[in-house]
Amino acid sequence: MLGTLIVSCPDRPGLVAALAQFLTAHGANILHAEQHRDTTSGLFFQRMQFEMARMDPDRTRLNRELGELARQYEMTWRLHASGDFTRVAIFVSKMDHCLYDLILRQKEGELRCEIPLVVSNHPDLQRVAEYFGIEFRCIPVPEGNHAAVEPQQFELLQSRNIGLVVLARYMQILSPQFVRKYSERIINIHHSFLPAFAGGRPYHQAMERGVKLIGATSHYVTEQLDEGPIIEQDVVRVSHREEIKDLVARGRDVEKTVLARAVKAHLEHRVVVCGRKTIVFS
Amino acid sequence: MLGTLIVSCPDRPGLVAALAQFLTAHGANILHAEQHRDTTSGLFFQRMQFEMARMDPDRTRLNRELGELARQYEMTWRLHASGDFTRVAIFVSKMDHCLYDLILRQKEGELRCEIPLVVSNHPDLQRVAEYFGIEFRCIPVPEGNHAAVEPQQFELLQSRNIGLVVLARYMQILSPQFVRKYSERIINIHHSFLPAFAGGRPYHQAMERGVKLIGATSHYVTEQLDEGPIIEQDVVRVSHREEIKDLVARGRDVEKTVLARAVKAHLEHRVVVCGRKTIVFS
Amino acid sequence: MLGTLIVSCPDRPGLVAALAQFLTAHGANILHAEQHRDTTSGLFFQRMQFEMARMDPDRTRLNRELGELARQYEMTWRLHASGDFTRVAIFVSKMDHCLYDLILRQKEGELRCEIPLVVSNHPDLQRVAEYFGIEFRCIPVPEGNHAAVEPQQFELLQSRNIGLVVLARYMQILSPQFVRKYSERIINIHHSFLPAFAGGRPYHQAMERGVKLIGATSHYVTEQLDEGPIIEQDVVRVSHREEIKDLVARGRDVEKTVLARAVKAHLEHRVVVCGRKTIVFS
Amino acid sequence: MLGTLIVSCPDRPGLVAALAQFLTAHGANILHAEQHRDTTSGLFFQRMQFEMARMDPDRTRLNRELGELARQYEMTWRLHASGDFTRVAIFVSKMDHCLYDLILRQKEGELRCEIPLVVSNHPDLQRVAEYFGIEFRCIPVPEGNHAAVEPQQFELLQSRNIGLVVLARYMQILSPQFVRKYSERIINIHHSFLPAFAGGRPYHQAMERGVKLIGATSHYVTEQLDEGPIIEQDVVRVSHREEIKDLVARGRDVEKTVLARAVKAHLEHRVVVCGRKTIVFS
Repeated sequence: MLGTLIVSCPDRPGLVAALAQFLTAHGANILHAEQHRDTTSGLFFQRMQFEMARMDPDRTRLNRELGELARQYEMTWRLHASGDFTRVAIFVSKMDHCLYDLILRQKEGELRCEIPLVVSNHPDLQRVAEYFGIEFRCIPVPEGNHAAVEPQQFELLQSRNIGLVVLARYMQILSPQFVRKYSERIINIHHSFLPAFAGGRPYHQAMERGVKLIGATSHYVTEQLDEGPIIEQDVVRVSHREEIKDLVARGRDVEKTVLARAVKAHLEHRVVVCGRKTIVFS
Repeated sequence: MLGTLIVSCPDRPGLVAALAQFLTAHGANILHAEQHRDTTSGLFFQRMQFEMARMDPDRTRLNRELGELARQYEMTWRLHASGDFTRVAIFVSKMDHCLYDLILRQKEGELRCEIPLVVSNHPDLQRVAEYFGIEFRCIPVPEGNHAAVEPQQFELLQSRNIGLVVLARYMQILSPQFVRKYSERIINIHHSFLPAFAGGRPYHQAMERGVKLIGATSHYVTEQLDEGPIIEQDVVRVSHREEIKDLVARGRDVEKTVLARAVKAHLEHRVVVCGRKTIVFS
Repeated sequence: MLGTLIVSCPDRPGLVAALAQFLTAHGANILHAEQHRDTTSGLFFQRMQFEMARMDPDRTRLNRELGELARQYEMTWRLHASGDFTRVAIFVSKMDHCLYDLILRQKEGELRCEIPLVVSNHPDLQRVAEYFGIEFRCIPVPEGNHAAVEPQQFELLQSRNIGLVVLARYMQILSPQFVRKYSERIINIHHSFLPAFAGGRPYHQAMERGVKLIGATSHYVTEQLDEGPIIEQDVVRVSHREEIKDLVARGRDVEKTVLARAVKAHLEHRVVVCGRKTIVFS
Repeated sequence: MLGTLIVSCPDRPGLVAALAQFLTAHGANILHAEQHRDTTSGLFFQRMQFEMARMDPDRTRLNRELGELARQYEMTWRLHASGDFTRVAIFVSKMDHCLYDLILRQKEGELRCEIPLVVSNHPDLQRVAEYFGIEFRCIPVPEGNHAAVEPQQFELLQSRNIGLVVLARYMQILSPQFVRKYSERIINIHHSFLPAFAGGRPYHQAMERGVKLIGATSHYVTEQLDEGPIIEQDVVRVSHREEIKDLVARGRDVEKTVLARAVKAHLEHRVVVCGRKTIVFS
């Protein structure tokens, strides 16, 4: 079993050694450590992976002493064990490319998660979910009033013990309350290279502007639409020959790849939010 | 000797055959033809390359009859012969990476042009130009008043018979009058993936927003800053580890590559402007 | 309805005009024409796309006169109409990533084909084929004797009117007789950047050599294993951190993308074989 | 001042903490640590960067105690201080693109080195070296007998205190003796995606095989030609339209980029050789 400890705190000398010593004293064998200093905020970030075989299986003492260390260094921390698989809900509308892609990667073992739930505002993708043995819930959304269905969605997420919501081309805007409840636990895919072409119909905007590359951006959802911390982006080359339908087709490939990489990084506890930005450890 | 004929006109059946027949009747052997239909405007574009060996060396008749054909089809046309090398002026400020790159590519024979002139608002790059035997003219620009030096620049461009102006990180904004005089003959490199991060300090903007790719965009200069038709773009991956100085260094590579590709395409008469966009024939 | 005419012949002056005139005289409106001269062989290649609306629906006369033109110019030609969808059989073993990818792209309308048949030497992927309503035939192959099952496979392909066989990670070697019967109509995906790492276990070979990029190659199958004309290739970056299982996972993405692009180009009649190489028109 | 410590040893629990503690006890403030375990050899590798401000400026004690720690853990180690700039000699023949690229990057501060010497078997690039104020030595090589000039080259390298030799398209094969003297300190650029197209005329080989991507590979030189540990590789897309001269031009761009990245990684002490492979820390 592997453990992953992610900490952040104001930078000061000796942090790397102090944390290494702390984990080793608790029986951990550190395999990887990666650090980052954010020059703007003066914050230090570290992600450590360690073998837990010789550690006390009861993590009570570890947690208590981590808490003490954290107070001493004004540290924020998260501890994950490799056995704790995140349970993911995928929200979709009618497009199936990201849905298939995520499910197939999970089946191949590329994504460290379970996918027990698909939620949609349309019935179209019920058959896909069921083919893969995943519960499908169709919750139609009254136009312009997503908040109306959120209590029902929230209850569903709670009862299914969902730890991550992936908006896989879910063409709806969540309310600020919903976003706050799942802060840093909702990942969206936007079909443009943000901040270019935020808002609606980005492929039409790209066509109109005559760009030579189109892109996709995966980010945590925040209360400001299309403004959340970016986790992953990529682009693909297009030419004057491509019409809208071709951009949409080329875009599908980059959308699903970018979303899968962002979800994978999140599930491996490699993403840390730092203000408007993310640190994505390798 | 190769000829290149570029035409555009309202689309109608039989155009490809009519043009092929016209050129063949004048002794041309067509080597390549590439077409494009712009669905928004309904315009047809064609670029034809042909061997001119058996054509009448006096192009008077060809030009006259092309003119007649053009009237018949409401056609715009340009005819270039491979012997007519464009004369290029490179405008720079203090950064030398794009300047070196363009000059070295020209020396290698990658760019079909002559580079007889470098213009700068600073004296810093005089030695570079002179090392390569290129005339260097330092024309300091009064702050916020580029128009003041444009008569002098314009006279210089005229007297040196310049057909293309390349702004190779020339940190000045040209006046609308200057831009109109050299319409579709001024190419700029902007150090961001436009339309993201238009305006000043794009690397700082990119850093602030936390994007995972930074880019560069080469475009024809129009009266609207950073809004001209895009000829070429590319991006390079960055991470949270890169500081501003690293973005600037990574950016240099993509800036010079993108600018060189755009200039090369222009010099090979492969670029046609269509509204806000470009067609770049292969 | 669109027509596509592909011709090749010894190069001589006037070919482009002669073909344009021929098609126009038969009522075709030429939309695109693309040419290539192979300097090694001295051959000329042209692909023309044209609107067929005003052409004689009975193609007898067109075919006869094309035959005459072909004799005159020593021309090889193929004529396709956009209504003639190729029928594709996908051969698989146990891995499903390329199979899903091809089927999903066909459903999205990206691939101009029908997929009526999946053939496998293992029963594992039956459920996938059937979920998408595709006939699945399991034909186990005696070790080292693929020829033993080829009569049965061949009959199946004939009876289902198959025009293209795609080996989507079909871990078997076809006999020369089979390959000859479907010359330039069998496309394989090899999981390396050929000619590097031909033969078995390319990811292990890549790991052992310590390359920094792994790739995939899609090619027409010929009698020489892994030596057929390459249609498409791509690579993906890897580092010292990747173990074999990671290379396999990264490789899946590039395999399916490369195979899909090659199949798409073939189905759009954009691929022409020229000796050991392919011309892939844009 | 920054210090960089690179160690490798048989893997065992507690290594990360032991090293962190050791450095901290000597007054180092660890900024970054990166680890790798090679599963084939069972070796552990670590690179640590640390602030040296509060360390004893006399490194005698540090070195002695590092030596003791090394014996205890069967460790190989290298310690670099950021003030120790490597002195680089660039070997060239007639092509100037890699030479210009390396010199210009060094001038921009991208490469942590000095470049005091250019060696060539031809006089062609003397003017380039001298323009940049670099000593140029022309040492003609008798055909097939590079060993004949190696004593002279070796003496030159010794007297100029050279720590890294970069073969920037130096079209000569070094003798095994020379290679052994500068083991892991000679970097070559090969103009293909190795192991494809090893040996001579790789662009001709690539053209002949009809590949759709061409590449370049930078590696440490070993006694086996084109077989040394790969530091960096990249590729660029080509099509049937490219002739040899186009491949050569496209290749120049990828050659110089790949070589510069490899040299940069070496100079930042991020490369460790592990058998036939390299670990390139980020």
